[in-house]
Amino acid sequence: MNIDKYQDSITNVSDFPIKGIQFKDITTLFENPDAFKAMMDDLIEQIDHLPEFNKIVALDARGFVLGGPLALHYHVPLVLARKPGKLPREGVKQSYSLEYGQNTMCISQNSINRGDKVLVVDDLLATGGTINSIVKITEKCDATCVGAAVIIELDDLNGRELLKPIDVVSLLHYKGE
Amino acid sequence: MNIDKYQDSITNVSDFPIKGIQFKDITTLFENPDAFKAMMDDLIEQIDHLPEFNKIVALDARGFVLGGPLALHYHVPLVLARKPGKLPREGVKQSYSLEYGQNTMCISQNSINRGDKVLVVDDLLATGGTINSIVKITEKCDATCVGAAVIIELDDLNGRELLKPIDVVSLLHYKGE
Repeated sequence: MNIDKYQDSITNVSDFPIKGIQFKDITTLFENPDAFKAMMDDLIEQIDHLPEFNKIVALDARGFVLGGPLALHYHVPLVLARKPGKLPREGVKQSYSLEYGQNTMCISQNSINRGDKVLVVDDLLATGGTINSIVKITEKCDATCVGAAVIIELDDLNGRELLKPIDVVSLLHYKGE
Repeated sequence: MNIDKYQDSITNVSDFPIKGIQFKDITTLFENPDAFKAMMDDLIEQIDHLPEFNKIVALDARGFVLGGPLALHYHVPLVLARKPGKLPREGVKQSYSLEYGQNTMCISQNSINRGDKVLVVDDLLATGGTINSIVKITEKCDATCVGAAVIIELDDLNGRELLKPIDVVSLLHYKGE
């Protein structure tokens, strides 16, 4: 693990997007090439221990930055999960509550098929609501979510519990204040 | 060039996001691993002919899928350009007109610095308004945009003309009806 090469490149921003939230800004990690590379190497090392998957679902929008390299590395289809109105062929939707507010995720029709084994990728795991919406979308498609991979996990928000029995890999841990 | 490996994986969607627009849906390319890999190889081959750059700006949100692999390949900082309200430390903004409507792009403060040579990456070049907003943001930071790379160019919309003298590389050409 190369955590010392990238953990200091995350920026804490107080009171974003609403008062009281300590936002973990991952964009400063992407702006550091050594940190980005070391983080991706660690993420792949962790994902290699997950059950086998044949498709990656990346979450709008920072998850797309990870989804591209991971789909190329594992040579599997990359499915984009987006907010409503962004996909021209919205097929399967799922609403969910998140740390501050409510939202809906959508995937295109026919992007996930019966029997698919899906890895979900995002930058951060908080309450798990967003990733859980993809678990439910996957189930609606008669497929299975076999794992989730994130850079940051906010431990106190218990997202990992919500997602059980799905395996979650994460690289950096914060309290989730 | 491997165009025959990915050109058929783009899906045309009529009347999205508004009536009259023939939307080129790139998500079906990302869902085809062979097509995605061949397209990235071609994009890198084209980008290698552009002037030297030391930073990549990827556009929200499909541009992020390309920005990740390209930043890792070239080992340069990846800067995310986002819609308003999405960045916790919005530093430099630029409004622009696009094919259907108006928008604003933002980058974080200190993400682009004096003297930087920037490559802009997005999935599609239409009128050029979005990419041109990054050119203007770059100028506001006393830096230079040295090139733009996209998968799809809608030739009739003359985005390439608007962006002159910036070099544009694109892989697939459509009329832009």
